[in-house]
Amino acid sequence: MNDASLARRRRTGGRKGHSDRAGHAVISQSPWRLPINPDNPTEPLDGDGVAALHRGAMRILSEIGIEFLNDEAIGHLKAAGCKVEGQMVRFDPHFVEEMVARAPSQFTLTPRNPDRAITIGGRHMVFGNVSSPPNAWDLDRGKRPGDFETYREFIKLTQYFNCMHFAGGYPVEPIDVHPSVRHLDCLFEKLTLTDKVAHAYSLGSERVDDVMEMVRISGGWTHEEFEASPRMYTNINSVSPLKHDWPMLDGAMRLARRGQPVVVTPFTLAGAMAPVTMAGAVALSLAEGLAAIALLQWIAPGCPVAIGTFTSNVDMKSGAPAFGTPEYMRATQMTGQMARFYGLPMRASGVCAANVPDGQAMWETANSLWSAVQSGANMIYHAAGWLEGGLIASPEKFVMDCELIQQIQRYFEPALWATTDDDIAVEAMAEVGPGGHFFGCAHTQERYQSAFYQPFLADWRNFEAWRSEGGVWTAERANRLYKRILEEFEPPPMDDGLREELSDFVARRKREGGAPTDF
Amino acid sequence: MNDASLARRRRTGGRKGHSDRAGHAVISQSPWRLPINPDNPTEPLDGDGVAALHRGAMRILSEIGIEFLNDEAIGHLKAAGCKVEGQMVRFDPHFVEEMVARAPSQFTLTPRNPDRAITIGGRHMVFGNVSSPPNAWDLDRGKRPGDFETYREFIKLTQYFNCMHFAGGYPVEPIDVHPSVRHLDCLFEKLTLTDKVAHAYSLGSERVDDVMEMVRISGGWTHEEFEASPRMYTNINSVSPLKHDWPMLDGAMRLARRGQPVVVTPFTLAGAMAPVTMAGAVALSLAEGLAAIALLQWIAPGCPVAIGTFTSNVDMKSGAPAFGTPEYMRATQMTGQMARFYGLPMRASGVCAANVPDGQAMWETANSLWSAVQSGANMIYHAAGWLEGGLIASPEKFVMDCELIQQIQRYFEPALWATTDDDIAVEAMAEVGPGGHFFGCAHTQERYQSAFYQPFLADWRNFEAWRSEGGVWTAERANRLYKRILEEFEPPPMDDGLREELSDFVARRKREGGAPTDF
Repeated sequence: MNDASLARRRRTGGRKGHSDRAGHAVISQSPWRLPINPDNPTEPLDGDGVAALHRGAMRILSEIGIEFLNDEAIGHLKAAGCKVEGQMVRFDPHFVEEMVARAPSQFTLTPRNPDRAITIGGRHMVFGNVSSPPNAWDLDRGKRPGDFETYREFIKLTQYFNCMHFAGGYPVEPIDVHPSVRHLDCLFEKLTLTDKVAHAYSLGSERVDDVMEMVRISGGWTHEEFEASPRMYTNINSVSPLKHDWPMLDGAMRLARRGQPVVVTPFTLAGAMAPVTMAGAVALSLAEGLAAIALLQWIAPGCPVAIGTFTSNVDMKSGAPAFGTPEYMRATQMTGQMARFYGLPMRASGVCAANVPDGQAMWETANSLWSAVQSGANMIYHAAGWLEGGLIASPEKFVMDCELIQQIQRYFEPALWATTDDDIAVEAMAEVGPGGHFFGCAHTQERYQSAFYQPFLADWRNFEAWRSEGGVWTAERANRLYKRILEEFEPPPMDDGLREELSDFVARRKREGGAPTDF
Repeated sequence: MNDASLARRRRTGGRKGHSDRAGHAVISQSPWRLPINPDNPTEPLDGDGVAALHRGAMRILSEIGIEFLNDEAIGHLKAAGCKVEGQMVRFDPHFVEEMVARAPSQFTLTPRNPDRAITIGGRHMVFGNVSSPPNAWDLDRGKRPGDFETYREFIKLTQYFNCMHFAGGYPVEPIDVHPSVRHLDCLFEKLTLTDKVAHAYSLGSERVDDVMEMVRISGGWTHEEFEASPRMYTNINSVSPLKHDWPMLDGAMRLARRGQPVVVTPFTLAGAMAPVTMAGAVALSLAEGLAAIALLQWIAPGCPVAIGTFTSNVDMKSGAPAFGTPEYMRATQMTGQMARFYGLPMRASGVCAANVPDGQAMWETANSLWSAVQSGANMIYHAAGWLEGGLIASPEKFVMDCELIQQIQRYFEPALWATTDDDIAVEAMAEVGPGGHFFGCAHTQERYQSAFYQPFLADWRNFEAWRSEGGVWTAERANRLYKRILEEFEPPPMDDGLREELSDFVARRKREGGAPTDF
């Protein structure tokens, strides 16, 4: 926490964000916390398997090469001694290893509210909202294109839920805002409606620079303070197979030079843009990820990066991507092993192929989230609100996912497996005796209020009690809940001066025409 | 496989059960197989924690004691040197350890169709149907008391799905059949409509003996052949806290003496019948389980047993049991560690508190099933069809659970993380090149038909394709599917002579009045 942020907290009375209090008004949710995953990861690969995947990734990089559709990147890699033919770059494995070794294994991102700082790496595990669906769906309105008002609703949900640690990409694409100024309006809302870590899309130099400037203003930081430590991040995707395109590389380099983290996430869909074999799809993903990380570590040694996984498989019947499948789970676990091998923080996702927030949606999402836990992933994208393979954002699904994510966070608490004499409680058993019950005994009375996870959405009453209040299924309960949360939402406190400065910046950039567009 | 069963297979042409073929008619399901769980278990406890739980269980057994409401059991335990006061038995920890060490760590159950033999223990993991709900629920008829026709429907589903390895208790209680003869009618249906391992309720000596006799007849075995190896099993529950009642102990002893397996599953609900702390609830469960196992190993050294876990927590608001919670998951994992410590096979469950097959039902069930995987559990009860904390059996939920269970079984297949050169497929990537796709390449064409899990219920099409066929949610799709499965169901082949002998036995026992009842 720096002096400027301390001073600002004093100005706002040092109080916690309103959202914590609003939380109590509508639901009793778990507190904000930085989860530590205590489980040893699930590791399908033995040592030979890890070595084989590493060797495979290095063969791809050295024998086939990766296309870099960005002349500046090509220039850097040529200077670094890589073999460049046109836009194809072949890497010496030793160079890749040397560059990857420069990356920190862990880093901390501090947004405008220093209480919302998050650490990426080690055993830390943080969660963010669904990002980038072009469409929204809810029970009342069905499927429809994303718009700005819906964008704002999802941003409010992202702020509201304490189990959401960062505000990722646009939770829905607001197509009613012109692309030249969309990033300005979206980031203004994100930086004022939330006080959590924000994200910049690497979709054009001006947009990336605008977002960095807006984040800097939101924190009241000087340029030096902004660059001194991670404040925000970008996520770039390769164009699998074997290609990085211009804007992603441009944005990644812009952030890396200013000390801001870059997550590199290839989307290797086995049987489509990647080999039909999971090891092949993972090796390809690693090669594409490591190629970009090598570039970034060459131009900005020690810059914070993370390697992402988005390896899944197609439905061989329809060609559509499937998510949360057995193959997806194993690919995520394998990538976790390789991320640890390379000493890199890792990103995974909470995903499904289902079109509505029903049973299928939740078994697929549970599979993907548990595989993220099992893989030791540090940063969980799309963790709340994702449907239809990422083409839909749904507020009902958002609320349902938050219940599951809260449970994962509770699952991490060591109290659940504590084995002191007080926990084993032989004396309480002696007191209660055969056939008795523990409701009334002192051991229970002293502990029951915090002994167990308390759901806000799950209905644990029996059928008749549940039916007596209408027999409402989960998606419908989530529908009622998200609307109440939005009605009572209060934005987090923000210094008036900084808010005005941010607003002025947006107005000026709009007068200047915003960012260039293709149309 | 013994001679009698070989001869019988020849009589029926040695063909596979019809159900495999019927399976192809309605859905394309995964084949029958005996899953091997390759994952190292998730172990929240360190060595000190394991020692503390063991010490706790031994203190319960030696300092408090367990009530045995069965004079025969009391007599055996007195003879074994236990301290008996009335019906309270205190155990010397050394005696318990010595008795538990007699139990085999693994055993195989062989039903009338030897192709349906299952192994319990080691890394094996087998799944069975929901057992014992008093009520059924489906989308068409809502909640209603169980009846015989509904019982038969669930038995058919149990046989139909290859991912179901054993036919557990009654999937729904048929209250329209008088309790004196219910076991006769139910077992006749189970033994003729399925060829999978069957179960006897330990609810009265006559019932237990009748079921053992019916299983013996179904296999065409002599009494000696029946007793020579496990053919069926019972599951007994303690009356937590600290009590075993008469019929459960009577049934367990009857099976143990004839070499048939006994699963001992205390139901320690933290905050109600067990301490509010999870370690306390697990220690109590272990103590109750080990007490019964010690008795059985005393009277039948080396008899096959398994230790079950059914430790969960109450909802502190309503007092209702909750399932698939974070606390439930950790209790299951802790019990897995202790089962390995004692060298005992372990039973866990697939459970939820939800009242209908919606999102909540599936995240709770996924949590419970994945914790069973993580705990290294060998035998998964209630894995398909369970709702409302076990008070409801639902055919839609049955079908939905089978999709998740198939995925778990697929998740175990080593092909998913194979790392041969052919799997890593660098050559295929070189062939496809940057920006290409893998649909058409030989590497894909040679493998795509079996590369990925194929769902029978999940809909992986995009929203518009899904909506064009009515936009049907998962529970409704499951409703349509289970009815088609039942329409086309064909029972497995059975020798006519054995079927007649079974029928004659039922008729005779009915003439004799069946089993005594309390009313």
